[in-house]
Amino acid sequence: MPTIDRDRLLADLRQLASFGRYETGVHRPSLSPQDMAARGWLADRMAEAGLDPAIDGVGTLIGRSRNAGPALLIGSHTDTQPQGGWLDGALGVVYGIEVARAFRDAPETRELAVDVASWIDEEGSYLGMLGSQSFCTGVAPEAIAAARSRDGEPLADAIAAAGLAGRPVARIEPGRYAGYLEAHVEQGGLLEADGKRIGVVTGIVGIRSFTIGFTGQQNHAGTTPMPLRRDAGAALIAFAHDVGQRFAALAGPRTVWTSGRMVLHPNAPSVIPGKAELSLQFRDLDPARLDAFEAAMAEAIAEAEARGPCRVAIVDARRVTPTPMAEQFQAAIERAAERHAAGLSMRMPSAAGHDAQILGRHMPAGMLFVPSIGGISHHIAENTADDDIALGAQVLATAAATILGR
Amino acid sequence: MPTIDRDRLLADLRQLASFGRYETGVHRPSLSPQDMAARGWLADRMAEAGLDPAIDGVGTLIGRSRNAGPALLIGSHTDTQPQGGWLDGALGVVYGIEVARAFRDAPETRELAVDVASWIDEEGSYLGMLGSQSFCTGVAPEAIAAARSRDGEPLADAIAAAGLAGRPVARIEPGRYAGYLEAHVEQGGLLEADGKRIGVVTGIVGIRSFTIGFTGQQNHAGTTPMPLRRDAGAALIAFAHDVGQRFAALAGPRTVWTSGRMVLHPNAPSVIPGKAELSLQFRDLDPARLDAFEAAMAEAIAEAEARGPCRVAIVDARRVTPTPMAEQFQAAIERAAERHAAGLSMRMPSAAGHDAQILGRHMPAGMLFVPSIGGISHHIAENTADDDIALGAQVLATAAATILGR
Repeated sequence: MPTIDRDRLLADLRQLASFGRYETGVHRPSLSPQDMAARGWLADRMAEAGLDPAIDGVGTLIGRSRNAGPALLIGSHTDTQPQGGWLDGALGVVYGIEVARAFRDAPETRELAVDVASWIDEEGSYLGMLGSQSFCTGVAPEAIAAARSRDGEPLADAIAAAGLAGRPVARIEPGRYAGYLEAHVEQGGLLEADGKRIGVVTGIVGIRSFTIGFTGQQNHAGTTPMPLRRDAGAALIAFAHDVGQRFAALAGPRTVWTSGRMVLHPNAPSVIPGKAELSLQFRDLDPARLDAFEAAMAEAIAEAEARGPCRVAIVDARRVTPTPMAEQFQAAIERAAERHAAGLSMRMPSAAGHDAQILGRHMPAGMLFVPSIGGISHHIAENTADDDIALGAQVLATAAATILGR
Repeated sequence: MPTIDRDRLLADLRQLASFGRYETGVHRPSLSPQDMAARGWLADRMAEAGLDPAIDGVGTLIGRSRNAGPALLIGSHTDTQPQGGWLDGALGVVYGIEVARAFRDAPETRELAVDVASWIDEEGSYLGMLGSQSFCTGVAPEAIAAARSRDGEPLADAIAAAGLAGRPVARIEPGRYAGYLEAHVEQGGLLEADGKRIGVVTGIVGIRSFTIGFTGQQNHAGTTPMPLRRDAGAALIAFAHDVGQRFAALAGPRTVWTSGRMVLHPNAPSVIPGKAELSLQFRDLDPARLDAFEAAMAEAIAEAEARGPCRVAIVDARRVTPTPMAEQFQAAIERAAERHAAGLSMRMPSAAGHDAQILGRHMPAGMLFVPSIGGISHHIAENTADDDIALGAQVLATAAATILGR
């Protein structure tokens, strides 16, 4: 059975972290010179592993097995957040290469097909999950044309600067894939808190994000008596408190909700706010629970509107549907974890987005998590114990062999 | 008895509004060329009225009566908010000149002393209530040296540019003043709402302004389970809701409280806020009620601190003590209002700040309000009916005669 090489794996991860190194982390935005250099280096590792590497017209690197299918596609992304961590994404890509090498080196798996992908721009420097979306469904040319970085750089310019203009964009080859596997750092503290070493991802949560707008009447904070006020900030406070109580009553064990953004206008201590905005985002794996939350929010809005004196309305709504992971893939990862670290795995949803949520809509998909030390990610302090990194790769290799029938 | 000249009064007010006219309002920041030109024009009107005008070393214009005291000081300010209204401040200064003229023209009051002041920078372009503070107590040279406009222009430069550098600063002449009278537009809608034409100001409210800081832990809005969160935004909402309920239970009929400013960090929908700030300001005439509000706020902070998981603390505190108006001045204004417009006056606090709150700490002071149409001020739409403008001047003249023993 395929056995991963711990030293080779860790050496490759550390080498990859040298591209765009920033203190103890990595600054490697998608399509940057550092990102493209890393992809070139990864292409060489893929070739050494016996894969045929190619970078496509948006920047995704795929190393394709020369073996006949059905193939298992294993991947993640090697672009990073600004001043991000060294393992976010990179772990899953190097795992893929290590699994391909382990498969090549074991007689039982030598003939099996493992393709390895490093998707472009999972982190959304220009257009979140550009690579996996391009691969699965294509991305409309207008969306490419409209995408810009925070600094205003057009995606098309970044693609051209990376030397990719005019290259074909890779697409799913119909019939080739048995499924998709992705490993990732947890980015939370649940595994660590429970003393577990492998997370078997049950699905990637759906996200519903709303901006609630409050419209009142800007006025003098001294001369406007309380009964005559239409205070948009007070309306925001009352609404946020009300909806928070409704949500708490409806929450499942893994539901999360957040108001990360509040904006008052004009935002001055002596002026009654005439306008306010509140972000309201909630995540869960269960679409029925997301529906229940959205209904509770709508009810809170309707009651606030009826109560007055401010207007309350949704001014922006975004919805990402949950992507359940394939049950047989969950079982394969769980059995592999049981074999290599008995009693040390747990099933859990991913509350963060991953390329697997795109791939999982087009083929069976599975994900495994390794623990994040202190639950930290998107930060240069992000880290995972070497033993956990090695265990995760071995569990992934064993699960991959199981999925492909070995 | 002194009788005001309605046409002369309205003509002077309209002429004064031509200095710095901006659409239907006035843009005349303190010490600007427009402000200084207006003061020059007002000095000529004072001289015509038989007063001896002088502009002091900070820009305050005082027209001094040649009659023996005790004198009544009548005034307000002629600097304006940026793009402000035409009556805010200007009304009270022109009223002072008109009262002086009416006194001069009536045999019963001809020998009485009325001094008229246009204080500098009530609106705080550089240093709020600079003129009245300089007159009453002086302003520390360090405070003058530190004061700057929003654009960063030092107050000292503005004083020099206005040609005032080196001039003496006017100070109260001990023993001269029987008291201070100020008339002003209401800047709120209470008179209009109650169908009244004269507000007898009972005092200028105290203001307590606090910034409450919340410190939690910035984290990922997906991967951080609810029980592990230290959400500074959620702490802000809970606190604001709690303190709002406590305040409502303690409020008097005229108490007002406002949270005009909220700031989350980093203020992004998908990030749990690690820090937040909330402004909390309350105003009342009664120091005991202000104390009760502050105690309730302190209790809410202590309970939030004890409850966790965020730290809650006051990070900034400012307190302006209430200034009650002299009871005999209130009575004089009320009797005068009863004489000229029976049943159309009401007693009310001023919830906005005025120079009378400075003068009122050093001599008996009284204020009267005329209605603001629609309650609007600090805006070019600010206005008052001509009949109300004329009535206010006549009530002030009659009250001034009463106060000086006629």
